[in-house]
Amino acid sequence: MTVAEVLPAVLDRIDGDLEASLDRLFALLRIQSVSTDPAYAAQCRNAAEHVAADLRSVGFETSVRPTEGHPVVLGKSGNGKSAGHAPRVLFYGHYDVQPVDPLDLWQTPPFEPRIETLDGGRKIIVARGACDDKGQAMTFIEACRAFKVVTGQLPLDITMMIEGEEECGSKHLFGFVRENADELKRDLALVCDTGMWDAQTPSITTSLRGLVYEEVRLTCADRDLHSGLFGGAARNPIHVLADILSAMHKPDGSVAIPGFYDGVHELPPDIKSDLAGLDLTPEKFLGPIGLKIPAGEKDRMLIEQISTRPTAEVNGILAGYTGEGAKTVIPGKAMAKVSFRLVGAQDPEKIRAAFRDFVRARVPTDCSVEFGNFTSAPAFDVAFDNPALGKARAALAEEWGKKAVTIGAGGSIPIVGDFKTVLGMDTLMVGFALDDDRVHSPNEKYDLRSFHKGIRSWARILAALAG
Amino acid sequence: MTVAEVLPAVLDRIDGDLEASLDRLFALLRIQSVSTDPAYAAQCRNAAEHVAADLRSVGFETSVRPTEGHPVVLGKSGNGKSAGHAPRVLFYGHYDVQPVDPLDLWQTPPFEPRIETLDGGRKIIVARGACDDKGQAMTFIEACRAFKVVTGQLPLDITMMIEGEEECGSKHLFGFVRENADELKRDLALVCDTGMWDAQTPSITTSLRGLVYEEVRLTCADRDLHSGLFGGAARNPIHVLADILSAMHKPDGSVAIPGFYDGVHELPPDIKSDLAGLDLTPEKFLGPIGLKIPAGEKDRMLIEQISTRPTAEVNGILAGYTGEGAKTVIPGKAMAKVSFRLVGAQDPEKIRAAFRDFVRARVPTDCSVEFGNFTSAPAFDVAFDNPALGKARAALAEEWGKKAVTIGAGGSIPIVGDFKTVLGMDTLMVGFALDDDRVHSPNEKYDLRSFHKGIRSWARILAALAG
Repeated sequence: MTVAEVLPAVLDRIDGDLEASLDRLFALLRIQSVSTDPAYAAQCRNAAEHVAADLRSVGFETSVRPTEGHPVVLGKSGNGKSAGHAPRVLFYGHYDVQPVDPLDLWQTPPFEPRIETLDGGRKIIVARGACDDKGQAMTFIEACRAFKVVTGQLPLDITMMIEGEEECGSKHLFGFVRENADELKRDLALVCDTGMWDAQTPSITTSLRGLVYEEVRLTCADRDLHSGLFGGAARNPIHVLADILSAMHKPDGSVAIPGFYDGVHELPPDIKSDLAGLDLTPEKFLGPIGLKIPAGEKDRMLIEQISTRPTAEVNGILAGYTGEGAKTVIPGKAMAKVSFRLVGAQDPEKIRAAFRDFVRARVPTDCSVEFGNFTSAPAFDVAFDNPALGKARAALAEEWGKKAVTIGAGGSIPIVGDFKTVLGMDTLMVGFALDDDRVHSPNEKYDLRSFHKGIRSWARILAALAG
Repeated sequence: MTVAEVLPAVLDRIDGDLEASLDRLFALLRIQSVSTDPAYAAQCRNAAEHVAADLRSVGFETSVRPTEGHPVVLGKSGNGKSAGHAPRVLFYGHYDVQPVDPLDLWQTPPFEPRIETLDGGRKIIVARGACDDKGQAMTFIEACRAFKVVTGQLPLDITMMIEGEEECGSKHLFGFVRENADELKRDLALVCDTGMWDAQTPSITTSLRGLVYEEVRLTCADRDLHSGLFGGAARNPIHVLADILSAMHKPDGSVAIPGFYDGVHELPPDIKSDLAGLDLTPEKFLGPIGLKIPAGEKDRMLIEQISTRPTAEVNGILAGYTGEGAKTVIPGKAMAKVSFRLVGAQDPEKIRAAFRDFVRARVPTDCSVEFGNFTSAPAFDVAFDNPALGKARAALAEEWGKKAVTIGAGGSIPIVGDFKTVLGMDTLMVGFALDDDRVHSPNEKYDLRSFHKGIRSWARILAALAG
């Protein structure tokens, strides 16, 4: 029988085994694996061992690998060698969770998972980690289990990497990936740590914006001056800085730095049309933060502005007297922090250099400027013609009865960038979180429907990739 | 004999009495009248009594008038009634001095005045207050004394007001002037607390710039935002503020706020030509603070930019993240402090209103702005055709052998504004300080020549005003 032929039986098994799947999830949720607090180090270790045992029960060959922080759980279903047309995949998730404080805002203890039925019959799983990322990661593991039970094996060569430091910056994972590149380099990475577009619309996150962060330190006079004595003749670095920062955007909202848009690609028309169909209005997106008018490129949809278009933002500015009352100073120095969100093939180092040139060209010759260089990361995106993407979209549409949208995330998930740059593979980010999941907050929840249909979704995706 | 006829005898007397004049100055310099430090309150009182006694010896009817701070010394030479064409004058000076720290930088104790002879034979008086303002005020008192000795009377009706809180903001003097307006309102005020243009060139300060000070507080989103999530769609208040502050000046350096130059008058051609003759170069003025290029209105001389032209300066700016490292925040709020130096008949309240309109017109409709209103003072200037000004200039030219220039001071001396607005009289500011007098610093000095020729200068001015 082909994988496609066994899929109905796998899905039936998932439906029939849901109670047991929930029991297994609850067992994991009861482990207090708060990674940021050293007091919970043993619990993190317990969670890693628990996940490893669980993976072993699905047929993975597992190991709990030490790092200088919390351990990484690895699981392998095969020998990792390419076998025919089916891609070998690396699944990434994390077993650690956010701290629970403020504890008194939780309606029930955060590590005592429970099912709550809301008005209208909607059922939710309530616990710290119910969604992020224990519940989400378990959708994938349970899909694997169903295949294993029904067919005796997994449909693909799957490598699992479940880490324990995502909530504190994955700081040891970058080195781990580099050191174990041979074991981890596969054809495709899968991640379940993102959300649906809404409760009806499945989505795949296909791009993450990159980042360049700069600090600009401007010096005019060699000391602070009295504006009565020097005002009108002495250059004011706040004026110079305001001129530079103001010149950084054109009236149409685009960024005026020469070469800034090099490497920024237009979305394919069908994708753009999908995004338009989502109808993300300013009222919906900006209303909750007290705003009404999108501030970005005037000829772009709001959803493009926040996900697939690059930006330039001033994140901080400081100069002169900022205390109570009045002081008539002309400061000698002024400082600003400026960052850029990058997309497509924009080159972080070229953007950095272009920005510095842009600034230097606007600094009067008797003044000087220094730059501070902070983080930089290129954007990540999956090619829209990646066959795995098409298969996953079709599988999700099949499960949810609605076209799966591809969306870009405005922020960056650094490890996904490393999958691309270090391991040379694309990542499909498929997740079933909803906007009201209270991730990182008290009373975190995951819809039972997200868990159940999430497992079914992964089963369909695995079948599609294998087919 | 007319006043003009007795002047040579008065000047002779001044020359012959210089040693005694210096003794009297030294006696005053020995009193530690530091006004900002409560520990010196009794010494301030002593200084007031000393000045009162000194004025009594010149024929003034004196009183030491209490305030909530240090007392004000008043002296009257006549009944204060108008008598013919000669103006009744109010002389203003102060007996208090700046603190002396850092004491270890003084070559000799600050309250033990001494004469030092520099290389080339130049003699200087070294002590705290030698110049500011004991030495300067005494030039006027000693000129009065010479008249009194030679002619038995003063050439004009003179009222003296010597206060004790100038170095801590004259805070009780404003109320004192209002409460005693009848006693203080004369035809003209004279002040000796300013400087010469240079050691050869006498000058009269004929204008002081006014001031309007505003704080701008801008709010966009109702909270700080993550630039990954909201960057590109959410309005950044730093961008809004930078646009506003940048728009405040035109490329030619002038201020772009509509109506800003209403009430700004052109200097008379002869005055402008005098200023040009002073040849204040960027190298001379900006070099010492590390700058080279005047930043103000491009079609104005530097000396105009700093004295007779109005300015707009941003004195402080603060928003977003300004600590170490990188934080990708889009702040909800941004703040700037902005001040304007005013000249001529610019109306502070109109300028304030025009600035607020200028800002409001540039704030997006979904954002909001609040303003903080700090100090405001109109500019002060003496009409160039004031006959007293012409007489004083001629008298100074006679004494120094060089045309006396009229200059504008960039900062404000609030009490002089009150003489105009509360008492309705103009002020001639004539002083003999030099740029190297180290006023407010250790080793303060006053050139013996400034003291000697300063006394002679006032004798000539008094004669000219009386004539």
